[in-house]
Amino acid sequence: NIRGMSHKIVNLRVRDVRFPTSLEQHGSDAMHTDPDYSAAYVVLDTDSGLKGFGLTFTLGKGTEIVLCAVKALAGLVIGKSLQEIVSNFRGFYRLLTSDGQMRWLGPEKGVIHLATAAVLNAVWDLWARAEGKYHAMYLSIQDPKQIVSCIDFRYITDVLTEEEALDILVKAQEGKKQREDQMLKEGYPAYTTSCAWLGYSDQQLKQLCSDGLKSGWTRFKVKVGADLEDDIRRCCLIRKMIGPSSTLMIDANQRWDVAEAISWVSRLAEVKPLWIEEPTSPDDILGHAAISKALAPLGIGVATGEQCHNRVMFKQFLQASALQFVQIDSCRLGSVNENLAVLLMAYKFQVPVCPHAGGVGLCELVQHLILFDYICVSADLRNRMCEYVDHLHEHFTSPVVIQDAHYMPPKDPGYSCEMLEESVNRHEYPEGDIWKQEIKK
Amino acid sequence: NIRGMSHKIVNLRVRDVRFPTSLEQHGSDAMHTDPDYSAAYVVLDTDSGLKGFGLTFTLGKGTEIVLCAVKALAGLVIGKSLQEIVSNFRGFYRLLTSDGQMRWLGPEKGVIHLATAAVLNAVWDLWARAEGKYHAMYLSIQDPKQIVSCIDFRYITDVLTEEEALDILVKAQEGKKQREDQMLKEGYPAYTTSCAWLGYSDQQLKQLCSDGLKSGWTRFKVKVGADLEDDIRRCCLIRKMIGPSSTLMIDANQRWDVAEAISWVSRLAEVKPLWIEEPTSPDDILGHAAISKALAPLGIGVATGEQCHNRVMFKQFLQASALQFVQIDSCRLGSVNENLAVLLMAYKFQVPVCPHAGGVGLCELVQHLILFDYICVSADLRNRMCEYVDHLHEHFTSPVVIQDAHYMPPKDPGYSCEMLEESVNRHEYPEGDIWKQEIKK
Repeated sequence: NIRGMSHKIVNLRVRDVRFPTSLEQHGSDAMHTDPDYSAAYVVLDTDSGLKGFGLTFTLGKGTEIVLCAVKALAGLVIGKSLQEIVSNFRGFYRLLTSDGQMRWLGPEKGVIHLATAAVLNAVWDLWARAEGKYHAMYLSIQDPKQIVSCIDFRYITDVLTEEEALDILVKAQEGKKQREDQMLKEGYPAYTTSCAWLGYSDQQLKQLCSDGLKSGWTRFKVKVGADLEDDIRRCCLIRKMIGPSSTLMIDANQRWDVAEAISWVSRLAEVKPLWIEEPTSPDDILGHAAISKALAPLGIGVATGEQCHNRVMFKQFLQASALQFVQIDSCRLGSVNENLAVLLMAYKFQVPVCPHAGGVGLCELVQHLILFDYICVSADLRNRMCEYVDHLHEHFTSPVVIQDAHYMPPKDPGYSCEMLEESVNRHEYPEGDIWKQEIKK
Repeated sequence: NIRGMSHKIVNLRVRDVRFPTSLEQHGSDAMHTDPDYSAAYVVLDTDSGLKGFGLTFTLGKGTEIVLCAVKALAGLVIGKSLQEIVSNFRGFYRLLTSDGQMRWLGPEKGVIHLATAAVLNAVWDLWARAEGKYHAMYLSIQDPKQIVSCIDFRYITDVLTEEEALDILVKAQEGKKQREDQMLKEGYPAYTTSCAWLGYSDQQLKQLCSDGLKSGWTRFKVKVGADLEDDIRRCCLIRKMIGPSSTLMIDANQRWDVAEAISWVSRLAEVKPLWIEEPTSPDDILGHAAISKALAPLGIGVATGEQCHNRVMFKQFLQASALQFVQIDSCRLGSVNENLAVLLMAYKFQVPVCPHAGGVGLCELVQHLILFDYICVSADLRNRMCEYVDHLHEHFTSPVVIQDAHYMPPKDPGYSCEMLEESVNRHEYPEGDIWKQEIKK
């Protein structure tokens, strides 16, 4: 038992929480022009009184579909104890992802996998809270064997076996304490996407870059892909603002076909981007490989992952040298369980992990995964940084803390995605006050 | 206008229809042990009184999630006229699959894409009915330019451009009339999966094979993957029953990892299977390529596709020589629009198309696609056949007609997936009589 209690899950509640971000073009990119950052927000109630909070991120419309999927999974969760789940976490992951009837709706992709992430994120939150530790720390004090037992190796053993995974974790025990102390003191390096959404005016871009530099940011990401001449102008403007020693990344959000990606990004080589993110379809492994190969001579890498739907896809992106930066997502993959598999595969291929964050709650969640990656897997900060977007943190009970462009490790127990009850009530769709007002307009 | 009318869509209804097939182990395989063949069933009402019927296939639990997704798409459909849709069908496809907010839930995969298929299948049904032709015939009398205008080439232009697609269709105009006459007379070759579900006893297997042979079947598929010794015994039994000149295929429904697939199937080489179907994860393009390469010396091909979620994945399977048989599905891909892209890419790579069917309504739908493939694209029957399963056809107003192990072209106007109103009422979940009785038990 966990500190004397089994924490039986007696109820699972899920709510549709939406923020009207589209009104001010926050988050706008070449493919998602009017996102309302939203979440399917899950609360687990246990017989001990302890609660677990989890979410999956969405863009507004359709969040109700994810809620429906969470409700379909609830029957597999309610009645189980935390103790029972974590003593065979691989089995529990398999139970949620391989139900003989629901598997057809994925498998392990799209709506049903987003719902799985929301549920499992809440379970991981519950587990860390039960142990009274913040999640990354709780993960990092676990026995490597226990960590490996959370991972479903199905379909990835041709690249990573359980034994290899264990070996990586055991070797990384060395220096773990120092790295944890370092993180507590310095934090994990971050980059900002807040300065250059596609819908912003030049005046806004300049002001935000200037503010960003003053706050210590040295790594900036710019949205591109709608219009080439406009991209050149905006990227040159930003490169001029941030200077040659700062890092610039560009993000096309899947706008192009393969040949177009290569020619378009080649035209932007003059601004010296570190990477082009999501140049084409998130499913196109071979396409990303072709783009990687073509852009390598220009010194531009390819980054992708926020819509890479499971570990089998990440496995192939790594096998095919189709990416040079792995952008894990805390809500697209099957929670910590599946992210652990991807962190370990990325380590094996020696490709740096630079997580996707932003939206609502993604920074709060993914900071734990990247801290764990540094402390317990990669032991390496070269070419590594975690995305940061300065939005909606005020709705969380333990918002991320950024100091000098670094994520400072969280202090409160859990996985950091509990939202303020008042925020949830106000933003619940369509009954919350915010939406009642919007609908009236 | 289409025969003088615009056929404005004034309503979209969707119903959850489930058949309790798990009670008798019909459809059981290594990963889906208790499927209840089901459908999200869509009816479009128009102002002309004409209706369009479409569906997407599911396995029972979770069908309500697909319904929820169909309802989320309905707003993009209601109010549009058939005339308006088909005059820019590519644009309409893009509208459904690239909504700035809902795209996040896919894109083009899982629940949201299954829902897209159900809606678009109903639109294609409506179109053929409006023209008073059965669907395949209606497709085949269209101008190649019109056909190409239905396809979204986004993300596939590195393999197939619009010009190449048009060129293939124009060249295949030659001999079209003869092939259509041939199909009307002989039908399209089929194989049966009805004889060897995993849950059946040896006695059942023998009886069904014997019955199958008597009805003229010469191509049989067997489910494998749960237990090697049991597979060897069952496959040998069936090979003995059907003789050396009949064709045997085996299907593992994603049960294995890559290395295990190779070793397991090698052990089954003695029964001379034409193909191993779904040896591993449907997402694992490179895995399938490795398996294809390893099994080629044994004369065993790899078939996959029923869970291949979009044209971008099929593109890569073809690029990587990861399959030797393309198994399109009428409900997993984005309806006819996306299947047309896959048929044309398969033709370009000269890989035969052998559709997935069975379930409920899949035979009714896919027969149109494979007839079109032969008449207007491939002009080739070598190594080609369409799956057939002898279940649930009695619930349709125009069930498939099988003669001498061939699909005979349908005669009624439309896409053949209108269900009998009484069947829908009885099997609607959970209110229908069938389910009220089941729940009582």
